[in-house]
Amino acid sequence: MENAPGNALVEKTISILEKLRERKPLTHCLTNEVVKDITANVLLAVGASPAMVEHPDECEQFAGFADALLVNLGTLKEQQTDAIRRAVAAYRRKNKPWILDPVAVGALAFRTTFAHELLRQQPTLIRGNASEIIALAGGVSQGRGTDSGDSTDAALNAARRLAENCACVVLVTGETDYATDGARTAKCRNGHFLMTRVTGVGCAQGALAAACAAASDGNIFAAAVATATILAIAGEIAAKDAPRPGSFRGALLDELDRIDAGVIREFAKIEAV
Amino acid sequence: MENAPGNALVEKTISILEKLRERKPLTHCLTNEVVKDITANVLLAVGASPAMVEHPDECEQFAGFADALLVNLGTLKEQQTDAIRRAVAAYRRKNKPWILDPVAVGALAFRTTFAHELLRQQPTLIRGNASEIIALAGGVSQGRGTDSGDSTDAALNAARRLAENCACVVLVTGETDYATDGARTAKCRNGHFLMTRVTGVGCAQGALAAACAAASDGNIFAAAVATATILAIAGEIAAKDAPRPGSFRGALLDELDRIDAGVIREFAKIEAV
Amino acid sequence: MENAPGNALVEKTISILEKLRERKPLTHCLTNEVVKDITANVLLAVGASPAMVEHPDECEQFAGFADALLVNLGTLKEQQTDAIRRAVAAYRRKNKPWILDPVAVGALAFRTTFAHELLRQQPTLIRGNASEIIALAGGVSQGRGTDSGDSTDAALNAARRLAENCACVVLVTGETDYATDGARTAKCRNGHFLMTRVTGVGCAQGALAAACAAASDGNIFAAAVATATILAIAGEIAAKDAPRPGSFRGALLDELDRIDAGVIREFAKIEAV
Repeated sequence: MENAPGNALVEKTISILEKLRERKPLTHCLTNEVVKDITANVLLAVGASPAMVEHPDECEQFAGFADALLVNLGTLKEQQTDAIRRAVAAYRRKNKPWILDPVAVGALAFRTTFAHELLRQQPTLIRGNASEIIALAGGVSQGRGTDSGDSTDAALNAARRLAENCACVVLVTGETDYATDGARTAKCRNGHFLMTRVTGVGCAQGALAAACAAASDGNIFAAAVATATILAIAGEIAAKDAPRPGSFRGALLDELDRIDAGVIREFAKIEAV
Repeated sequence: MENAPGNALVEKTISILEKLRERKPLTHCLTNEVVKDITANVLLAVGASPAMVEHPDECEQFAGFADALLVNLGTLKEQQTDAIRRAVAAYRRKNKPWILDPVAVGALAFRTTFAHELLRQQPTLIRGNASEIIALAGGVSQGRGTDSGDSTDAALNAARRLAENCACVVLVTGETDYATDGARTAKCRNGHFLMTRVTGVGCAQGALAAACAAASDGNIFAAAVATATILAIAGEIAAKDAPRPGSFRGALLDELDRIDAGVIREFAKIEAV
Repeated sequence: MENAPGNALVEKTISILEKLRERKPLTHCLTNEVVKDITANVLLAVGASPAMVEHPDECEQFAGFADALLVNLGTLKEQQTDAIRRAVAAYRRKNKPWILDPVAVGALAFRTTFAHELLRQQPTLIRGNASEIIALAGGVSQGRGTDSGDSTDAALNAARRLAENCACVVLVTGETDYATDGARTAKCRNGHFLMTRVTGVGCAQGALAAACAAASDGNIFAAAVATATILAIAGEIAAKDAPRPGSFRGALLDELDRIDAGVIREFAKIEAV
């Protein structure tokens, strides 16, 4: 049974999805090399417009056109750091949301140092698994790549601390997702384990967060809840008729295209905690 | 109802498809980071052979083996310009077709300058959306990424001018596609809006154009019409049983494998204008 | 009819698959730009854990976490050679398997020189098509890209010589696959031609080889047989209900998820030769 703040977040999720489809936010993704196809397809399926401009000069210029930025560190290379720095600075100057997805931070040194540098540029929202969030918040985590070695429950305190320290929203994803701005926390319990059996679904969630942030009129906490809920419901429904990973990938995109207010009201499991 | 030149182009489309399947042109794609998977899969599905050699020395050397080159500027980076320049020069020396896909040219400065440099290397065929073609032809366009802000009808004059000035063929793609060599113009009215809901279908069309050019025995105008028509018919049929983007992606590839003379004769909507 | 050593290899294939699913080897793929999505999805579908760390420092560090390394030269660029060299050295120091996939070696000069340098770093297993293996072994091959111009039968002697000279296992893939360590050779006759109509299936096989090597307790010859057999059986079954390339791609991943001891015993065609 959902409590009242949970229900308000369901309605807010619906309103963000509807605004996203109306505005089709141009979502600039500086993301890793493995997930560009699925990231763009998740954005297109849900109704946003993906773009992956990567030249440093153009990144800066593109901040004038685009509505939000995702920075995902999955396959970070030295020569990308300049583009990321300039993109982040440009989106900040324009007061447009930028999302940080600190893939495998904690386990690997180069990206961990860079992620801490980026933290000082005040991301609007940080999306990560439990190990990544614990590491970013300064704790000792168990991650060894894209898999989390920690549970999201274990990461909740770290997430709240990180959100407070950075004045941002943190979305910790896993079997249960948590969105927090430090003061408020929502628990999102939709989803399906097959989402971890298709590469890039988590990374694409970072891009969806950017699009939802752009459609949220500044309510980033609600954008985080919407991000978690929309993707997880689509995954839950997709798994019903596509119980194996190859066909699940296509079904997930179909459900992101199909999801609407009625589906969200029927399936959403959001609680304020 | 189709007029006589339109019917001749239908037969020419069939003959290009059949030659493509017989010769399996080795199609060298220097394309953007998002669309490499779907580009290679579109080429394989239709019957061509994709290759994505990217080292500058090897690009030059590969021009000795491959049958045509695609240059797509979607995620252009400084360090790729050398490989592109040397590849283009090598294919020109060997009189092999090279196709330019000027993604987001007009909206973004670095690639726009580079695209104008490439224009002087006489592309065999240019494929772009309305905004890109207007921008390349020197006009003021409305594009803001991969989406066109202009209609293909508005771009037709720009396309004709560009084709004349560069002595090449221009394929403007959108709801209706136009192929023109400046003197002749064909209107191709197949297609389905779902083709814009899957990332890289437009970019893969550039690769298909390279393969069709290699199979056209130098009739590049017919190759442009074949490119537009083959992909658009496959999309139209695929959408019938796969009305959402996730499953549509697979269905489109299946239809590119299935399409043949009979299907083209039944579905093609080509008019000389 | 299978002979006794063939049957032992069937049981060994089953045992490797089961260990792979139990241990979920973290498989570090330094692979080409076209196939990262399908490579990661093949690993996930079969039950392994993919990772694509690319920064040279992190490649070295990641050798401490990961279980095996794949090096695939498909889109090799100058700036990747440092990461590959350091990764290979680090996996060797830790006695973890590393797999070489010499895509288009022989046809293209830069990668051929680099592949010969890597040969001196004693790959655990080399996977290639007939032309690539002939070229690596020092012969004259007919390849012109990713397509082999030679049959695997023609490459068998080259494969045996290469395996002996490098003290490694060689897996030559094609219509029939051969695994050899120089002394022993196994012939694997499963598979379906549609596997060549989807981009990256061969390259993903290199990643599967890394995961199987990590799950083989040092029996690399058996790992090569398991690699060939698991993927080929999945392809064979997938093609039954998905006879065209778009839907086949998803079906192949579904079958990699579904394959188990019973399926392998029913379908495997392995002979010692």
